[in-house]
Amino acid sequence: MTKRYSVLAFDIFGTTVDWFSGVSAEVGPELADAWRERYLPLLRRVNSGDREWANLDVLHREALDELLAAQGVEADEAARRRMVLAWHRLPAWDDVVDGLSRLREHYVLAALSNGGFALLTTLIESAGLPFDCILSAELFQAYKPDPRPYRATAELLGVHPEETLMVAAHAWDIDGARAAGLGTAFVERPREKGPHRVADRAADTVSDISVANFGELADLLIPRQAAGTHG
Amino acid sequence: MTKRYSVLAFDIFGTTVDWFSGVSAEVGPELADAWRERYLPLLRRVNSGDREWANLDVLHREALDELLAAQGVEADEAARRRMVLAWHRLPAWDDVVDGLSRLREHYVLAALSNGGFALLTTLIESAGLPFDCILSAELFQAYKPDPRPYRATAELLGVHPEETLMVAAHAWDIDGARAAGLGTAFVERPREKGPHRVADRAADTVSDISVANFGELADLLIPRQAAGTHG
Repeated sequence: MTKRYSVLAFDIFGTTVDWFSGVSAEVGPELADAWRERYLPLLRRVNSGDREWANLDVLHREALDELLAAQGVEADEAARRRMVLAWHRLPAWDDVVDGLSRLREHYVLAALSNGGFALLTTLIESAGLPFDCILSAELFQAYKPDPRPYRATAELLGVHPEETLMVAAHAWDIDGARAAGLGTAFVERPREKGPHRVADRAADTVSDISVANFGELADLLIPRQAAGTHG
Repeated sequence: MTKRYSVLAFDIFGTTVDWFSGVSAEVGPELADAWRERYLPLLRRVNSGDREWANLDVLHREALDELLAAQGVEADEAARRRMVLAWHRLPAWDDVVDGLSRLREHYVLAALSNGGFALLTTLIESAGLPFDCILSAELFQAYKPDPRPYRATAELLGVHPEETLMVAAHAWDIDGARAAGLGTAFVERPREKGPHRVADRAADTVSDISVANFGELADLLIPRQAAGTHG
């Protein structure tokens, strides 16, 4: 069996780690929810050129300040900094470490996230995620779903875009990767936005592969002979 | 004890892995030696702006082609590609994996090398080096000792240059890091250039720290209390 892909690129927030639980533990579920909704438009303003590049910590802080002001919540500088750092240490979904460890035997595994480089480095180390390398939107000064981060990932790792598989739990990320010429794998994370919001589903986009977790992804992508079923 | 540094950045070729043995095994010691000597000037031409950016694989190939032509050696395309790939898989020095593993408990460990991003990803995975992240000159389109890669490393990891310690076996790398405002640790690798050339020595430069191997570096940098001597 010839492998179609040689590099697997993984989205992080929601796909690999449970941001909702992690951030809720620091700021409560309502604020976590409103916060995530509020920074996505800021990110789009950077991509459209309406505002200069700023990394995710800066955008998170701006969105937080706006939100606390709108809600009339008091929080001092130290508390706000601590809240922003809640995004730097988040728990992995249960299937992630085992799935990545299996896949790493056969593929180059890259984290490809809109998180800042320092954030991703801390997050990946603290969650014990066995990636081969970390690629952040910060390196390219463009946020997904802009085509640049997807194409740069393939180029830096010395492969064609179609040899790179983007794994993500969000329709907008899958759409961006497909538009940039990458293969796509949608992973369902029904609890990604917590109990009160509906997460994206496979039917919301078009992807080459659709799976329920990283274990299923490993079952699909690891060549059968290598998996030991060559009897 | 307060730690002076929070990020340790490691040079790779010669400092962390034994390029001479690895490349000699593929092309022989004479060619390995001449090859390394020949690509360093190419790298300086990129930094000076005399030539456009090209990653290390491209510079390695150019230097190899020139060298084979000068020596009248025949080698087909496949052989030349294989030779260039010899730089992608090299053995770590004996003290490296243990030293890095100990240091990683206390510091963020970054690879910071002039090698291309794909090369470094393959090299670090195959040698089993426990880095937290990989930073390549290719990301910044500037080669060490230009100040940009050193400063970008600190900035991307969210620390001041003086909180970052550059660990290297070459005087030019230590000089570049110091000029960019980083702390510096010289590590002696007397066999770095093989048996017929003299490697750089601590006395060839000025560094904050000088050690014989990564074990000594860990002994120096790991806070005593954390090392278990608080009885």
